[in-house]
Amino acid sequence: MLQNIRVVLVNTSHPGNIGGAARAMKNMGLSRLVLVGPRIFPSAEADARASGATDILENAQVVATLEEALIGCSLVFGTSARDRRIPWPLLDPRESGVKVVEEAGRGAEIALVFGREDSGLTNDELQRCHYHVHIPSDPDFSSLNLATAVQVLSYEVRMSWLAAVGQPSKVEKHEVASTRSEELATMDEMERFYGHLEQTLVAIDFLDPEKPRHLMARLRRLYGRSSVSRAEMNILRGILTETEKAARGELLKRKDQ
Amino acid sequence: MLQNIRVVLVNTSHPGNIGGAARAMKNMGLSRLVLVGPRIFPSAEADARASGATDILENAQVVATLEEALIGCSLVFGTSARDRRIPWPLLDPRESGVKVVEEAGRGAEIALVFGREDSGLTNDELQRCHYHVHIPSDPDFSSLNLATAVQVLSYEVRMSWLAAVGQPSKVEKHEVASTRSEELATMDEMERFYGHLEQTLVAIDFLDPEKPRHLMARLRRLYGRSSVSRAEMNILRGILTETEKAARGELLKRKDQ
Repeated sequence: MLQNIRVVLVNTSHPGNIGGAARAMKNMGLSRLVLVGPRIFPSAEADARASGATDILENAQVVATLEEALIGCSLVFGTSARDRRIPWPLLDPRESGVKVVEEAGRGAEIALVFGREDSGLTNDELQRCHYHVHIPSDPDFSSLNLATAVQVLSYEVRMSWLAAVGQPSKVEKHEVASTRSEELATMDEMERFYGHLEQTLVAIDFLDPEKPRHLMARLRRLYGRSSVSRAEMNILRGILTETEKAARGELLKRKDQ
Repeated sequence: MLQNIRVVLVNTSHPGNIGGAARAMKNMGLSRLVLVGPRIFPSAEADARASGATDILENAQVVATLEEALIGCSLVFGTSARDRRIPWPLLDPRESGVKVVEEAGRGAEIALVFGREDSGLTNDELQRCHYHVHIPSDPDFSSLNLATAVQVLSYEVRMSWLAAVGQPSKVEKHEVASTRSEELATMDEMERFYGHLEQTLVAIDFLDPEKPRHLMARLRRLYGRSSVSRAEMNILRGILTETEKAARGELLKRKDQ
């Protein structure tokens, strides 16, 4: 179940932190590391700080964009230290650990995304996440070291996982309670859906590309909360396709015949 | 209450870990650091890793023996990675956090003791502790970095403290509320939305009133899961209104002008 979980580090500046994160992951039984445009990697410093978790560094996937890092994922958690203007489902690390294990147990691919050392994740990146995770730090000194932040989340995943495998009745309970047997749409499928949605809203003159306001962010939040299944996404895309035809006047032509 | 808690690092080899521990403590609202015979201290490396928690380093007490470090303490927790031959009360970090806050709330002086990077605490040192704490790591790769171990225990103390003082673990109260501060659409508003949605799907030829299948039921389930706010519902209805105009060919007429 833990192998369904990937840790994604975005634009890491200090290779030591990549090593520290790898060590923290391996300590907690996680193994899949994805690096989005790391400044320096591979590096001797990362190897040193990994302190034996070099297999995780060797197998780390290096990609150019967060989008690539999330391919195949159906549930994404983004760490956030800052106030957000757009409200978003917010979890603490413990709640995240429970949710991660619950969904990983159902076969979902899950990403835990960590931002830059100095500035975290951008608003755009945070909007690609289903949940924001905030580690409850002192408001006067709130910025955690990257590797220790990875440690805290990985620790909570492990605590939750130990509880789940130690008491199989709990796992069963989660599954029954979930009442949702359909496969969830993956992140990249949802991205294509959002692209299609945006294009359609422009076609029907609802979205002005010059003045988008926060429309797409709001819609992402709405659908994100709902954990859309693949079947549901296909229905929504079908609606968009018909709407586009309507905008092109194809329906009227069809009716004229 | 948090000021009753001291973090004790025994014979730390790497000054970077002292700095990392100080940062982790300060992030979690702890402030009292005691160093038993550190190999190198003070140090520029410790300052660098402390990343702003230099006040904790400046106020750190340096002593020669664990005995001195524990003066005035009535409750001592010692971290232990290894199986111990001597049976001892063993807690996980969460249980420790609860116990620490419980006792600190009664005014007890408490120490969290962390051992050497390579060999932990000696049996003699562990016997001076009331409780042993084990961070549940992968048995095949169980040795945590010292600063991340301090992070995990400090995090659990903070989680327990936040619960004790009645603060939510997720940032400040107003932010938690703002996660979903928007008023939800009422049931009857949602009914009108579903009516509008159905009518629009018929208009764009996506829904055949003669063969509706379970389309509306599926869409109700999708939006129902999401607990749509009134503001979101208004956006969705705006989209439907524009879609209906498109279906009537009004967009084309507008564009022809």
